[in-house]
Amino acid sequence: MTQERNVSDAKLGANYTPRRGWFHTWGELDPGQVAEDLAQIADLGLDHVRIFPLWPHLQPNRTRISTAAVDELLSVVDIAGEQGLDISVDLLQGHLSSFDFLPAWVSTWHRRNLFTDPEVLQAQQALAAVLGDELAAREHVTGMTLGNEIGQFAVSYHPDPHPVADAEATDWTRALLETVDQHLPGRRNHHSFDDTLWFKDDHPFTPADAVTLGASTTVHSWVFTGAGQTLGQGHPALALFGRYLIEVAELWQRLLGAPRDRRIWLQEIGAPVPWVAPEDAAEFATTSIRAAVSHRSVEAVTWWCSHDVSRDLADFPEVEHSLGLFDERGRVKPVGEAIGALAAELREPGTDPDGIAEQSVQDGDAADGFPVPELALDGANRSVLGPRGEVFARWAAEALEGRVRPLVVDSSVTEDTMRHSASPSNPVDAERVFSS
Amino acid sequence: MTQERNVSDAKLGANYTPRRGWFHTWGELDPGQVAEDLAQIADLGLDHVRIFPLWPHLQPNRTRISTAAVDELLSVVDIAGEQGLDISVDLLQGHLSSFDFLPAWVSTWHRRNLFTDPEVLQAQQALAAVLGDELAAREHVTGMTLGNEIGQFAVSYHPDPHPVADAEATDWTRALLETVDQHLPGRRNHHSFDDTLWFKDDHPFTPADAVTLGASTTVHSWVFTGAGQTLGQGHPALALFGRYLIEVAELWQRLLGAPRDRRIWLQEIGAPVPWVAPEDAAEFATTSIRAAVSHRSVEAVTWWCSHDVSRDLADFPEVEHSLGLFDERGRVKPVGEAIGALAAELREPGTDPDGIAEQSVQDGDAADGFPVPELALDGANRSVLGPRGEVFARWAAEALEGRVRPLVVDSSVTEDTMRHSASPSNPVDAERVFSS
Repeated sequence: MTQERNVSDAKLGANYTPRRGWFHTWGELDPGQVAEDLAQIADLGLDHVRIFPLWPHLQPNRTRISTAAVDELLSVVDIAGEQGLDISVDLLQGHLSSFDFLPAWVSTWHRRNLFTDPEVLQAQQALAAVLGDELAAREHVTGMTLGNEIGQFAVSYHPDPHPVADAEATDWTRALLETVDQHLPGRRNHHSFDDTLWFKDDHPFTPADAVTLGASTTVHSWVFTGAGQTLGQGHPALALFGRYLIEVAELWQRLLGAPRDRRIWLQEIGAPVPWVAPEDAAEFATTSIRAAVSHRSVEAVTWWCSHDVSRDLADFPEVEHSLGLFDERGRVKPVGEAIGALAAELREPGTDPDGIAEQSVQDGDAADGFPVPELALDGANRSVLGPRGEVFARWAAEALEGRVRPLVVDSSVTEDTMRHSASPSNPVDAERVFSS
Repeated sequence: MTQERNVSDAKLGANYTPRRGWFHTWGELDPGQVAEDLAQIADLGLDHVRIFPLWPHLQPNRTRISTAAVDELLSVVDIAGEQGLDISVDLLQGHLSSFDFLPAWVSTWHRRNLFTDPEVLQAQQALAAVLGDELAAREHVTGMTLGNEIGQFAVSYHPDPHPVADAEATDWTRALLETVDQHLPGRRNHHSFDDTLWFKDDHPFTPADAVTLGASTTVHSWVFTGAGQTLGQGHPALALFGRYLIEVAELWQRLLGAPRDRRIWLQEIGAPVPWVAPEDAAEFATTSIRAAVSHRSVEAVTWWCSHDVSRDLADFPEVEHSLGLFDERGRVKPVGEAIGALAAELREPGTDPDGIAEQSVQDGDAADGFPVPELALDGANRSVLGPRGEVFARWAAEALEGRVRPLVVDSSVTEDTMRHSASPSNPVDAERVFSS
């Protein structure tokens, strides 16, 4: 089946960041402004948006779901439909652009674990049910995602962590997805996470959660998590990091017995300064997206983000002010124009989106793959694939030369080899290739 | 001057807790519902309300003040005016009924000290300026309070404390009050705190902050902070705890050289179960308020709260569901009727509100006061006056017998005496008098 798809069938969209007021406009929505923003996205030729309500607005008390907040959310959904855009909705925010938004009823005096407290879980599922029921009536809703990178709350270095065991993280994800699937049936519902799931050995959310739960496997590609530091600012291979993450996801799908036709959604990718200079963002985006959609499993790419965060807003990481396809005054940026051009190109039937031939490994052809060390299926040594290691460095060096290979486990490759710098006996001198 | 006032000139009002949806109605205000709630309060004969916006709604980003949230706040202020009610507005919530509401920009990854971070303080002052300017145009606004019991965030046992040195706490309070006074001139602006300020030796907010800053000294009387545990459920002296706190406040005013005519606002007092049984709430309220307003310095008493918190809302301490003058269906409760009757009585000129004669100490007549140990002016031994100690127990025993005395420092009284249980040589056997 998958072999017969046109390589250009991937959807191309944007994570919607309201131009005026960012997500602080929840609670004071201006439908005209939303329509203006979403029309810009649609006019660029993108086909979908992903949106992010704030959990404390939707559910200010454990047993109160705000009708007004739900209505406001639905009005954004409806405006997207009017603009011809498909839309997916993230349930629990949770975490957005360095800010955490948690209701008072899970904080300080009422602090309870987001992933294990039975009453918290009951409330989350109640919210999922209410939103799912409402969204089910809207055909252009592609699905819901449990919450933007919500696993960040469970990671050990979070300043106020909600620790969770691996099995509990799986249970939480499975149960909430089941509720969403029940109330929003026939759509593609997802679990969302940053790349620490793929690369942090002790992360309680594991590759198994990523590749066996949800309608497809989501991938968030940010070169500031290690690729930039490894390769250096402006390195051309940074634009292959998204594709690398897709290969990592597909490797885990194979290792963990996911269906062969399981798809991958590059749910977030952006061009962050200083790793990608503003003048390079358009090329970075074009290369990144071509490399992604040329992979047979990729069903969609969703750029982060639609609109730059206004400089009127304080305390954002610097990078967040320049990730948009449109600037804070609403003017399309070169990266927006580039993605718009690419969207037009991808709509042409039969397009080979970047000339990178379909490289995904098929069952039995692992001999053509890029060899990586054996991986514990529980993720205990998953960091060997991380962006600061040799696997990525060498894979990227090959990919830059046009050889984009799937990752395959090769028991003759040891972790030690891959955790150390390239040696003279290695064909690729990572230090040389990747100096910026 | 103060001697010539009629003892019954104190204002009587309620802390407004919206009947439907509590403070979660911010962001989705129903003006008709607010009007209905406030009309009930006015119809009872009360003359003012105190209201509580939520900080994250008003200021979702450090440099963004929500026009919509400000407008919503002003609409409540205007509705109060239409109902003939004066109104005071608390700035930073902050803390309400066990829940903490803090913006994302001072939490987790963006955690900054609420009382010392220069940018946080700048933002708080910007918000104070905006609200002050708007409120200044409204004659029925009596003033602003910095934030409900905001010092709770600084106390050592807070689960996520914002520690502050004594001098920094003073600086914070003074500076923010100055800003409020500047933008809302000619009104009575206040600092608000729970009774740990009076009784916790290491509390960074000190009695000096209470009695020298703000238009008057505020007092919050809750018998669950120790008086109930000391005296027992249902003890009649519990209704004198509010008056005791007023005496404590006045003692500190004298010790710290506050103006002789400085007033005291009993800004919160309520009848909490299980310490006050529901059937005793009306009598508790009547006795408490009579005992308070008979003190020459008391300018107002504001009952907590107007409306019971609905049982539809989860995670509130049990007590919060029964503190209202009206129940969650909007029916006036016996305590509401009692306070309404008292309000009518107090409006009669010349009333001696409870037959407890004016007992406040005058300069030079300290010999008539209730002797307490010497107090360090920085509050370092303030706990000697606390509700679990002998001073309160003995003062209350006298007061129950009709002898309501001001507190005066007497160097012959030692802390040791007052920190231990009543001995056979003491005239009052606290154990016997106060068994419930």
